[in-house]
Amino acid sequence: MPSDADATRVHRAGVPDAAELFSLVQALAAENGDAVPDAGTLEGWQRVLGRPEAVVLLARRDGAAVGYVSAVRKLHLWLGRDVLALDDLFVRAGHRDAGLGRLLMAELARLATAEDLVVRWEMREDNVAAQRFYERLGARLRRKVVASWGPEAQRRFLGS
Amino acid sequence: MPSDADATRVHRAGVPDAAELFSLVQALAAENGDAVPDAGTLEGWQRVLGRPEAVVLLARRDGAAVGYVSAVRKLHLWLGRDVLALDDLFVRAGHRDAGLGRLLMAELARLATAEDLVVRWEMREDNVAAQRFYERLGARLRRKVVASWGPEAQRRFLGS
Repeated sequence: MPSDADATRVHRAGVPDAAELFSLVQALAAENGDAVPDAGTLEGWQRVLGRPEAVVLLARRDGAAVGYVSAVRKLHLWLGRDVLALDDLFVRAGHRDAGLGRLLMAELARLATAEDLVVRWEMREDNVAAQRFYERLGARLRRKVVASWGPEAQRRFLGS
Repeated sequence: MPSDADATRVHRAGVPDAAELFSLVQALAAENGDAVPDAGTLEGWQRVLGRPEAVVLLARRDGAAVGYVSAVRKLHLWLGRDVLALDDLFVRAGHRDAGLGRLLMAELARLATAEDLVVRWEMREDNVAAQRFYERLGARLRRKVVASWGPEAQRRFLGS
Protein backbone atom coordinates (compact mmCIF):
# COMPACT_ATOMS: atom_id res chain seq x y z
CA MET A 1 0.00 0.00 0.00
CA PRO A 2 2.32 2.77 -1.18
CA SER A 3 -0.19 5.55 -0.57
CA ASP A 4 -0.41 4.57 3.11
CA ALA A 5 3.33 4.23 3.45
CA ASP A 6 3.91 7.65 1.92
CA ALA A 7 1.92 9.41 4.63
CA THR A 8 3.39 7.28 7.41
CA ARG A 9 6.55 7.85 9.40
CA VAL A 10 7.99 5.72 12.20
CA HIS A 11 10.42 7.26 14.67
CA ARG A 12 11.92 6.53 18.05
CA ALA A 13 9.84 8.20 20.77
CA GLY A 14 11.50 10.54 23.23
CA VAL A 15 10.33 12.36 26.33
CA PRO A 16 8.47 15.06 24.28
CA ASP A 17 6.29 12.29 22.78
CA ALA A 18 5.08 11.10 26.19
CA ALA A 19 1.59 12.65 26.02
CA GLU A 20 0.81 11.13 22.62
CA LEU A 21 2.20 7.76 23.65
CA PHE A 22 0.21 7.85 26.89
CA SER A 23 -2.97 8.48 24.91
CA LEU A 24 -2.26 5.36 22.80
CA VAL A 25 -1.48 3.29 25.91
CA GLN A 26 -4.79 4.39 27.44
CA ALA A 27 -6.62 3.34 24.27
CA LEU A 28 -4.92 -0.06 24.42
CA ALA A 29 -5.77 -0.43 28.12
CA ALA A 30 -9.43 0.40 27.40
CA GLU A 31 -9.57 -2.21 24.62
CA ASN A 32 -7.99 -4.80 26.91
CA GLY A 33 -10.53 -4.01 29.60
CA ASP A 34 -7.68 -3.09 31.96
CA ALA A 35 -8.30 -0.88 34.94
CA VAL A 36 -7.48 2.76 34.18
CA PRO A 37 -4.47 2.98 36.57
CA ASP A 38 -2.78 0.10 34.72
CA ALA A 39 -1.86 2.47 31.89
CA GLY A 40 0.28 4.48 34.32
CA THR A 41 0.58 8.25 34.34
CA LEU A 42 1.93 10.90 32.00
CA GLU A 43 4.79 11.52 34.43
CA GLY A 44 5.51 7.80 34.51
CA TRP A 45 5.76 7.65 30.71
CA GLN A 46 7.95 10.73 30.62
CA ARG A 47 10.29 9.02 33.05
CA VAL A 48 10.20 5.77 31.07
CA LEU A 49 10.98 7.51 27.76
CA GLY A 50 14.04 9.04 29.42
CA ARG A 51 15.45 5.63 30.33
CA PRO A 52 18.04 4.36 27.82
CA GLU A 53 16.74 0.76 27.94
CA ALA A 54 13.22 1.80 26.85
CA VAL A 55 12.69 1.45 23.09
CA VAL A 56 9.42 2.91 21.82
CA LEU A 57 8.74 3.45 18.12
CA LEU A 58 5.81 5.68 17.17
CA ALA A 59 3.95 5.47 13.88
CA ARG A 60 2.64 8.82 12.69
CA ARG A 61 0.17 9.30 9.89
CA ASP A 62 -0.10 12.85 8.66
CA GLY A 63 1.70 13.88 11.82
CA ALA A 64 -0.65 12.21 14.29
CA ALA A 65 0.59 9.31 16.45
CA VAL A 66 -1.59 6.34 15.50
CA GLY A 67 0.39 3.34 16.73
CA TYR A 68 3.46 2.18 18.60
CA VAL A 69 5.64 -0.75 19.43
CA SER A 70 7.39 -0.77 22.80
CA ALA A 71 10.27 -2.88 24.06
CA VAL A 72 12.88 -2.93 26.81
CA ARG A 73 16.52 -3.90 26.56
CA LYS A 74 17.16 -6.55 29.15
CA LEU A 75 20.21 -8.56 30.08
CA HIS A 76 19.89 -12.24 29.15
CA LEU A 77 21.98 -14.13 31.70
CA TRP A 78 22.77 -17.26 29.68
CA LEU A 79 23.54 -15.34 26.50
CA GLY A 80 25.57 -12.81 28.48
CA ARG A 81 24.13 -10.00 26.38
CA ASP A 82 20.99 -7.94 25.96
CA VAL A 83 17.77 -9.04 24.33
CA LEU A 84 14.77 -6.89 23.47
CA ALA A 85 11.65 -7.71 25.49
CA LEU A 86 8.78 -6.53 23.33
CA ASP A 87 5.93 -5.16 25.42
CA ASP A 88 3.13 -3.76 23.21
CA LEU A 89 2.29 -3.52 19.55
CA PHE A 90 -0.74 -1.31 19.09
CA VAL A 91 -2.43 0.54 16.24
CA ARG A 92 -5.38 2.79 16.94
CA ALA A 93 -8.80 1.67 15.64
CA GLY A 94 -9.48 3.30 12.29
CA HIS A 95 -5.86 2.84 11.19
CA ARG A 96 -5.73 -0.95 11.15
CA ASP A 97 -5.37 -3.38 8.24
CA ALA A 98 -3.11 -0.92 6.46
CA GLY A 99 0.20 -2.59 7.27
CA LEU A 100 1.12 -0.32 10.19
CA GLY A 101 1.73 -3.20 12.62
CA ARG A 102 3.99 -4.85 10.09
CA LEU A 103 5.78 -1.55 9.46
CA LEU A 104 6.39 -1.05 13.20
CA MET A 105 7.74 -4.61 13.52
CA ALA A 106 10.01 -4.01 10.52
CA GLU A 107 11.46 -0.88 12.15
CA LEU A 108 11.95 -2.80 15.39
CA ALA A 109 13.69 -5.57 13.45
CA ARG A 110 15.98 -3.03 11.78
CA LEU A 111 16.97 -1.71 15.20
CA ALA A 112 17.40 -5.24 16.60
CA THR A 113 19.38 -6.70 13.70
CA ALA A 114 21.84 -3.80 13.90
CA GLU A 115 22.99 -5.34 17.20
CA ASP A 116 21.95 -8.98 16.63
CA LEU A 117 19.35 -8.76 19.41
CA VAL A 118 16.84 -11.54 19.92
CA VAL A 119 13.31 -10.14 20.46
CA ARG A 120 11.06 -11.94 22.94
CA TRP A 121 7.49 -11.35 24.08
CA GLU A 122 4.39 -13.06 25.34
CA MET A 123 0.73 -12.95 24.39
CA ARG A 124 -2.55 -14.37 25.58
CA GLU A 125 -3.37 -17.95 24.65
CA ASP A 126 -6.67 -16.89 23.06
CA ASN A 127 -5.12 -14.15 20.93
CA VAL A 128 -4.95 -16.34 17.85
CA ALA A 129 -4.88 -13.40 15.43
CA ALA A 130 -1.70 -12.08 17.05
CA GLN A 131 -0.14 -15.54 17.02
CA ARG A 132 -0.80 -15.90 13.28
CA PHE A 133 0.56 -12.40 12.62
CA TYR A 134 3.80 -13.09 14.49
CA GLU A 135 4.25 -16.51 12.90
CA ARG A 136 4.01 -14.87 9.50
CA LEU A 137 6.92 -12.61 10.59
CA GLY A 138 8.95 -15.73 11.38
CA ALA A 139 8.73 -15.71 15.18
CA ARG A 140 8.87 -19.05 17.00
CA LEU A 141 5.92 -19.53 19.38
CA ARG A 142 5.75 -21.81 22.41
CA ARG A 143 3.19 -22.34 25.13
CA LYS A 144 4.49 -21.51 28.58
CA VAL A 145 3.24 -20.99 32.10
CA VAL A 146 4.00 -17.49 33.33
CA ALA A 147 4.25 -16.75 37.05
CA SER A 148 3.81 -13.41 38.78
CA TRP A 149 4.71 -12.96 42.45
CA GLY A 150 3.75 -9.60 43.88
CA PRO A 151 5.14 -7.91 47.00
CA GLU A 152 2.04 -8.78 49.07
CA ALA A 153 2.25 -12.47 48.19
CA GLN A 154 5.99 -12.40 48.89
CA ARG A 155 5.36 -10.89 52.33
CA ARG A 156 2.71 -13.50 53.12
CA PHE A 157 5.22 -16.20 52.16
CA LEU A 158 7.99 -14.65 54.28
CA GLY A 159 5.62 -14.35 57.23
CA SER A 160 4.41 -17.95 56.99
CA MET B 1 14.98 -28.96 58.94
CA PRO B 2 17.16 -26.95 61.31
CA SER B 3 20.23 -29.14 60.84
CA ASP B 4 20.20 -28.43 57.09
CA ALA B 5 19.59 -24.76 57.61
CA ASP B 6 22.47 -24.52 60.06
CA ALA B 7 25.02 -25.65 57.51
CA THR B 8 23.50 -23.56 54.72
CA ARG B 9 24.26 -19.99 53.77
CA VAL B 10 22.76 -17.92 50.96
CA HIS B 11 24.63 -14.91 49.61
CA ARG B 12 24.61 -12.61 46.62
CA ALA B 13 27.06 -13.88 44.02
CA GLY B 14 29.77 -11.59 42.73
CA VAL B 15 32.39 -11.87 40.00
CA PRO B 16 34.66 -14.13 42.15
CA ASP B 17 31.81 -16.69 42.32
CA ALA B 18 31.58 -17.01 38.54
CA ALA B 19 33.35 -20.39 38.24
CA GLU B 20 31.13 -22.04 40.86
CA LEU B 21 28.00 -20.53 39.34
CA PHE B 22 29.05 -21.60 35.85
CA SER B 23 29.46 -25.18 37.10
CA LEU B 24 25.87 -25.10 38.45
CA VAL B 25 24.55 -23.61 35.20
CA GLN B 26 26.28 -26.38 33.25
CA ALA B 27 24.66 -28.98 35.52
CA LEU B 28 21.25 -27.39 34.91
CA ALA B 29 21.85 -27.27 31.15
CA ALA B 30 22.81 -30.96 31.15
CA GLU B 31 19.63 -31.87 33.06
CA ASN B 32 17.54 -29.83 30.63
CA GLY B 33 19.18 -31.57 27.69
CA ASP B 34 20.37 -28.19 26.41
CA ALA B 35 23.27 -27.98 24.03
CA VAL B 36 26.55 -27.31 25.86
CA PRO B 37 27.06 -23.78 24.41
CA ASP B 38 23.69 -22.69 25.83
CA ALA B 39 25.23 -22.46 29.31
CA GLY B 40 27.56 -19.72 28.08
CA THR B 41 31.19 -19.34 29.08
CA LEU B 42 33.06 -18.57 32.28
CA GLU B 43 34.01 -15.17 30.86
CA GLY B 44 30.37 -14.55 30.02
CA TRP B 45 29.27 -15.28 33.58
CA GLN B 46 32.05 -13.11 34.99
CA ARG B 47 30.78 -10.26 32.84
CA VAL B 48 27.16 -10.94 33.84
CA LEU B 49 27.98 -10.99 37.56
CA GLY B 50 29.58 -7.58 37.16
CA ARG B 51 26.39 -6.06 35.78
CA PRO B 52 24.32 -4.24 38.42
CA GLU B 53 21.00 -5.56 37.09
CA ALA B 54 22.04 -9.21 37.51
CA VAL B 55 20.85 -10.68 40.80
CA VAL B 56 22.24 -14.14 41.58
CA LEU B 57 21.93 -15.74 45.01
CA LEU B 58 24.12 -18.75 45.76
CA ALA B 59 23.28 -21.38 48.35
CA ARG B 60 26.35 -22.89 50.00
CA ARG B 61 26.33 -25.99 52.12
CA ASP B 62 29.51 -26.48 54.14
CA GLY B 63 31.08 -23.89 51.88
CA ALA B 64 30.29 -25.57 48.56
CA ALA B 65 27.90 -23.90 46.12
CA VAL B 66 24.99 -26.32 45.70
CA GLY B 67 22.22 -24.15 44.26
CA TYR B 68 21.28 -20.74 42.96
CA VAL B 69 18.46 -18.49 41.96
CA SER B 70 19.10 -15.94 39.23
CA ALA B 71 17.11 -12.89 38.22
CA VAL B 72 17.50 -9.66 36.26
CA ARG B 73 16.20 -6.22 37.12
CA LYS B 74 14.19 -5.01 34.17
CA LEU B 75 12.20 -1.87 33.52
CA HIS B 76 8.45 -2.50 33.37
CA LEU B 77 7.06 0.14 31.00
CA TRP B 78 3.47 0.31 32.28
CA LEU B 79 4.50 0.28 35.94
CA GLY B 80 7.24 2.81 35.22
CA ARG B 81 9.58 0.95 37.56
CA ASP B 82 11.74 -2.14 37.72
CA VAL B 83 10.56 -5.70 38.20
CA LEU B 84 12.70 -8.77 38.80
CA ALA B 85 12.66 -11.29 35.96
CA LEU B 86 13.54 -14.60 37.59
CA ASP B 87 15.62 -16.78 35.30
CA ASP B 88 16.68 -20.03 37.06
CA LEU B 89 16.09 -21.76 40.34
CA PHE B 90 18.40 -24.77 40.59
CA VAL B 91 19.63 -27.08 43.32
CA ARG B 92 22.24 -29.69 42.51
CA ALA B 93 21.15 -33.36 42.62
CA GLY B 94 21.95 -34.83 46.02
CA HIS B 95 20.94 -31.63 47.80
CA ARG B 96 17.26 -31.60 46.89
CA ASP B 97 14.17 -32.06 49.07
CA ALA B 98 15.92 -30.27 51.92
CA GLY B 99 14.22 -26.90 51.54
CA LEU B 100 17.04 -25.21 49.62
CA GLY B 101 14.79 -24.07 46.77
CA ARG B 102 12.39 -22.57 49.26
CA LEU B 103 15.27 -20.92 51.12
CA LEU B 104 16.59 -19.36 47.90
CA MET B 105 13.12 -18.07 47.02
CA ALA B 106 12.78 -16.62 50.53
CA GLU B 107 16.06 -14.72 50.15
CA LEU B 108 14.95 -13.47 46.74
CA ALA B 109 11.65 -12.35 48.27
CA ARG B 110 13.53 -10.50 51.03
CA LEU B 111 15.53 -8.65 48.41
CA ALA B 112 12.40 -7.95 46.31
CA THR B 113 10.12 -6.81 49.13
CA ALA B 114 12.77 -4.32 50.28
CA GLU B 115 11.96 -2.41 47.08
CA ASP B 116 8.42 -3.65 46.42
CA LEU B 117 9.51 -5.44 43.26
CA VAL B 118 7.17 -7.81 41.46
CA VAL B 119 8.95 -11.03 40.46
CA ARG B 120 8.02 -12.63 37.14
CA TRP B 121 9.17 -15.77 35.35
CA GLU B 122 8.09 -18.47 32.96
CA MET B 123 8.27 -22.23 33.01
CA ARG B 124 7.48 -25.14 30.74
CA GLU B 125 3.87 -26.25 30.50
CA ASP B 126 4.78 -29.83 31.45
CA ASN B 127 6.79 -28.82 34.52
CA VAL B 128 3.91 -29.49 36.89
CA ALA B 129 6.15 -29.98 39.93
CA ALA B 130 7.54 -26.46 39.52
CA GLN B 131 4.07 -25.03 39.04
CA ARG B 132 2.88 -26.63 42.29
CA PHE B 133 5.97 -25.41 44.12
CA TYR B 134 5.48 -21.81 42.97
CA GLU B 135 1.77 -21.86 43.70
CA ARG B 136 2.55 -22.92 47.26
CA LEU B 137 4.73 -19.79 47.52
CA GLY B 138 1.72 -17.69 46.47
CA ALA B 139 2.68 -16.94 42.87
CA ARG B 140 -0.10 -16.43 40.34
CA LEU B 141 0.26 -18.66 37.27
CA ARG B 142 -1.20 -18.12 33.80
CA ARG B 143 -0.82 -19.90 30.50
CA LYS B 144 0.69 -17.73 27.80
CA VAL B 145 2.16 -18.03 24.35
CA VAL B 146 5.78 -16.89 24.28
CA ALA B 147 7.37 -15.68 21.06
CA SER B 148 11.06 -15.59 20.18
CA TRP B 149 12.31 -13.78 17.09
CA GLY B 150 15.99 -14.25 16.39
CA PRO B 151 18.24 -12.07 14.21
CA GLU B 152 18.19 -14.58 11.31
CA ALA B 153 14.37 -14.67 11.25
CA GLN B 154 14.27 -10.87 11.51
CA ARG B 155 16.63 -10.58 8.53
CA ARG B 156 14.54 -13.01 6.48
CA PHE B 157 11.48 -10.89 7.28
CA LEU B 158 13.25 -7.64 6.36
CA GLY B 159 14.47 -9.17 3.11
CA SER B 160 11.05 -10.47 2.10
